[in-house]
Amino acid sequence: MATILKGAPVVAAMNERNAALCEQLKAKGITPTLAMVRVGEREDDLSYERGVIARCGKVGVEVKQFLLPADASQDDLLKVIAEVNAEDTIHGCLLFRPLPKQFNDRTVRAALAPEKDIDGITDDSLAGVFTNTDLGYAPCTAQACLEILKYYNIPLSGRRAVVVGRSLVVGKPAAMMLDRENATVTICNSRTQNLPAICKEADVVVVAMGKMGAVGADCLREGQTVVDVGIHVNENGKLCGDVKFSEAEPVVDAITPVPGGVGTVTTSVLVGHVVQAAAKKAGL
Amino acid sequence: MATILKGAPVVAAMNERNAALCEQLKAKGITPTLAMVRVGEREDDLSYERGVIARCGKVGVEVKQFLLPADASQDDLLKVIAEVNAEDTIHGCLLFRPLPKQFNDRTVRAALAPEKDIDGITDDSLAGVFTNTDLGYAPCTAQACLEILKYYNIPLSGRRAVVVGRSLVVGKPAAMMLDRENATVTICNSRTQNLPAICKEADVVVVAMGKMGAVGADCLREGQTVVDVGIHVNENGKLCGDVKFSEAEPVVDAITPVPGGVGTVTTSVLVGHVVQAAAKKAGL
Repeated sequence: MATILKGAPVVAAMNERNAALCEQLKAKGITPTLAMVRVGEREDDLSYERGVIARCGKVGVEVKQFLLPADASQDDLLKVIAEVNAEDTIHGCLLFRPLPKQFNDRTVRAALAPEKDIDGITDDSLAGVFTNTDLGYAPCTAQACLEILKYYNIPLSGRRAVVVGRSLVVGKPAAMMLDRENATVTICNSRTQNLPAICKEADVVVVAMGKMGAVGADCLREGQTVVDVGIHVNENGKLCGDVKFSEAEPVVDAITPVPGGVGTVTTSVLVGHVVQAAAKKAGL
Repeated sequence: MATILKGAPVVAAMNERNAALCEQLKAKGITPTLAMVRVGEREDDLSYERGVIARCGKVGVEVKQFLLPADASQDDLLKVIAEVNAEDTIHGCLLFRPLPKQFNDRTVRAALAPEKDIDGITDDSLAGVFTNTDLGYAPCTAQACLEILKYYNIPLSGRRAVVVGRSLVVGKPAAMMLDRENATVTICNSRTQNLPAICKEADVVVVAMGKMGAVGADCLREGQTVVDVGIHVNENGKLCGDVKFSEAEPVVDAITPVPGGVGTVTTSVLVGHVVQAAAKKAGL
């Protein structure tokens, strides 16, 4: 029987910290404000958006929405980003991605002012993660994995961590953040041979493959902590992760659930970054 | 009896490519030019400098030296860097580091124009390595490890690589470049427990600990390729690496020597970056 590493208490602790900092800012006449830039109406984006708006409301962060039609041009989007950059009362910007095909993702990412990049999409933010310096903000999902591990006091220094997946949104930044905690980190990719044996070497396994149920009991052993970043809808219409929870839970020591795990913490990380960006600007 | 992965043939192949590109540039009236900025007279710097000047001469790259006294101020150095940035005929800049204590390394690194950062010290270059995009240049020693592995056709895709050391100059960028080649990469640090067992998991071991003779036969097994990044002077006044060569050589399949291995290739990577920077600017 594994300990279930629920996101809710992590979120509660983060909300408290963020709300307290918000109060301090409001006493100075500053309302931390998030710009949300959405192109089109993808269901995933809408669902994330609802979560972010609710969390912002709880903490005291204001939201300004910038909506473009699915057939908007790159120029249209760049104009909106320029507006967000220039607007002094906006502290952070969430741009929903992936963008439709008419956009050049790299050009668009580069257009955002690094100090407003609370979602960790600019090269400055990624350089900050890689070099372990205070440049921009870490990608929120990667940071959410670490927030959970730290909240539940999972030992990392000197332990072995395996990250399955090497995206710039989760896998690679999570690997760098685990390294920063002095874990010995292994990054697996789709060419990795004998993934089950490699996963079993780890004390902490972060699974960010984007493949439903790809990690099962064959990859796991007792004593491990498993962080499941995946989120999928199964054939019964239920949310599930990259890990086969029912196989994993009886084997490992601790595991994050899906839903109610990494995803819910990600939203709080994002909102926290907005508050931090406002505090930084105010010299707090 | 291991195959000795000597740097010399790698260097010869790179020199040939670089000289050919130099010829093309000279036909357009362009001489690829490297600025070398040195503060003080550290013996390590002088020795590297001599190697770079000789290699540049061989390939057809011009060198301009900017020398400052050991007690130069940060402003003095920033002025020199501004001059290098502004000078149109300079294509790349090598700044010898570590700098004396009166300098803020990060401020100085940030001052260099990314397109002239042929030594991979700016955040742009490091972001390029992390995100696998064409931003700046990779740190030369890390790239030298990969140049050797590729020249000798050491298989990397799907293989396990262990990088011992996580500096931004070698370990971390080498790990990212091995990941780019689809290796499954483990990054070890000073807190890593049971380093010998972890090293033995690897098909390719890159040792960049900066500790003389830290890796011996207990960390190695047959079938492995070892890349030794260390360079030290032993008690008999001889150059040696992080790996105990006499212990490793009878055990592993292939190993780079010290001297004559990674170090000699590093210089060619640096000179190659200058030529590439000139070619990029010329639209070649």
